[in-house]
Amino acid sequence: MSSQPEPGAEPGSGRPDVLVHRLPSFALPFLALLRDHFTVLDPRTDSPDEPAHAFLARRAGRTRALVCVGPTPLPADTLRLLPSLRLVVATSAGVDKIDLRECRRRGIAVTNSGAAFAEDVADYAVALLLDVLRRMSASDRYLREGLWLKNGDYPLGFKLGGKRVGIVGLGNIGSQVAKRLQPFSCDIAYNSRSKKPSFPFPYYTSVRDLAANSDVLILCCALTEETRHVIDREVMTVLGDRGVIINVGRGGLIDEKELVQFLVRGELGGAGLDVFEDEPNVPKELFSLDNVVLSPHSAVITPESFEALGELTMSNLKAFFSGQPLSCLVQGE
Amino acid sequence: MSSQPEPGAEPGSGRPDVLVHRLPSFALPFLALLRDHFTVLDPRTDSPDEPAHAFLARRAGRTRALVCVGPTPLPADTLRLLPSLRLVVATSAGVDKIDLRECRRRGIAVTNSGAAFAEDVADYAVALLLDVLRRMSASDRYLREGLWLKNGDYPLGFKLGGKRVGIVGLGNIGSQVAKRLQPFSCDIAYNSRSKKPSFPFPYYTSVRDLAANSDVLILCCALTEETRHVIDREVMTVLGDRGVIINVGRGGLIDEKELVQFLVRGELGGAGLDVFEDEPNVPKELFSLDNVVLSPHSAVITPESFEALGELTMSNLKAFFSGQPLSCLVQGE
Repeated sequence: MSSQPEPGAEPGSGRPDVLVHRLPSFALPFLALLRDHFTVLDPRTDSPDEPAHAFLARRAGRTRALVCVGPTPLPADTLRLLPSLRLVVATSAGVDKIDLRECRRRGIAVTNSGAAFAEDVADYAVALLLDVLRRMSASDRYLREGLWLKNGDYPLGFKLGGKRVGIVGLGNIGSQVAKRLQPFSCDIAYNSRSKKPSFPFPYYTSVRDLAANSDVLILCCALTEETRHVIDREVMTVLGDRGVIINVGRGGLIDEKELVQFLVRGELGGAGLDVFEDEPNVPKELFSLDNVVLSPHSAVITPESFEALGELTMSNLKAFFSGQPLSCLVQGE
Repeated sequence: MSSQPEPGAEPGSGRPDVLVHRLPSFALPFLALLRDHFTVLDPRTDSPDEPAHAFLARRAGRTRALVCVGPTPLPADTLRLLPSLRLVVATSAGVDKIDLRECRRRGIAVTNSGAAFAEDVADYAVALLLDVLRRMSASDRYLREGLWLKNGDYPLGFKLGGKRVGIVGLGNIGSQVAKRLQPFSCDIAYNSRSKKPSFPFPYYTSVRDLAANSDVLILCCALTEETRHVIDREVMTVLGDRGVIINVGRGGLIDEKELVQFLVRGELGGAGLDVFEDEPNVPKELFSLDNVVLSPHSAVITPESFEALGELTMSNLKAFFSGQPLSCLVQGE
């Protein structure tokens, strides 16, 4: 790389500052890569004994770019400590922990990393759907408990082919889900903020109408004020007692209390849930249900995808500091 | 249907005989459909107290067609009781319980039902592969045991995209597996009795060479004398400690004792097993492994597919009795 200061570099430094904002439990797998190109401010390692807000006030007043790691909250209170901030690069697909309204008010650009995660999340959505329909986790338990030998065959599951699959959110992830489901002979339809003319699938303006015409709903949309509890009592009712819900978005997309009741009463056919409203708490009523597959927010990534995530993060930071267009801009509120 | 006797009908009857050959635990879901068109001989219901061989000797001497249900054995001893037999319609995909050599010697045509099962089995193969790679059954167990809350995140699995997938047997099922895996960006290759020019995938003449160039092997071939233990110590060794084996064929395709040792010693990356050498016995050493998904021979069918199975069976029986060509003929030994 050039040894010349890049535009936006701090005085006295050859490299611009990038602030790494993260929960203690979330490491950044490509921190070394970041350090090759930027002066990385990381309160967790630079000054572990100092409260984060004190570090920010002391050290990050001129910082223009921040990498927000995973689900780390970035509320207005924190943003106020960063008066020069102009870019937030989120390493997650969802940005519901970032105060997008405050970012928009301040003219701070926000990018997400959905593009780097889309394949893994889409794979997982298909896997959850197959698992729920064909009862794979349940029959794996059945075998490990020695019940095949003792009680005979496990009940048959259901066929994926021919199912009407409604995708809620046809963005990076949703479109990858659709692509994967086509060779399984599913009938795909979708709901999204707007019709996507580049896709041949029927478009429904409301999730309720999509549900009324679907056997399966797959939730791939962002959690916003508009989409919170988009899967409510009414949607579950029209989806019906053979209907299946797959959630690889955010727990808050579903009214979880209602979902649990529908599943416990047998008023839904099944659910594959990678996300929950109050993680890592999972409603215990679901633990005894064989038509439910539970997963600890694992859809998002595999080790193989960290490289793509690092590349996307680096490319947006470099674009920002050289005045080039950003990719994966979040359409904030 | 015509009220005229069909060709091959028994004297004195308007309809030809069809013998239903089945284990007591295997019902035929479309028995009523069969009775609409044929005189069904079913020792299990017609004469439940009589030994099956006595019933056959007494009643089936002129029977020309037999429906062999699921994994019911059809050995030479039984075939000898049926001197007029000219057709065996197997309602299963695999015909390893049928004495194909004796059938060939006697000029008895054998058809299988792989075509009706192919979609469900292919779906299941993809599901097992995703489950093994992404650790879904294991992480579902982790949640149900309350360990997410107690121990934190479950380890990340592995990405499907980019994996080199070797399909052993590119017939009805294998080709459906390939079609499903393409949008996941897998690199597909195969081994089969012969090269299939209609498919664009690289062909390997030996399973060993396929394994040496694959991250995943998916077994979709029939169990024959040639394919018994086709996955042996050498194949597992070249597949290596990150390699994954998916078996939706028959348990006997794998040297199961060796497989267990490879998995227990960590010399294979994982396995998804729907079939076993001595069902319903499953090697207990596998019960503690999170990189293994176990399933009670469930790949084969869903309730939604029974209709297709009934149609295929009926169409072959009707073709036989009217001198038309059969579909899904088994290439016997």
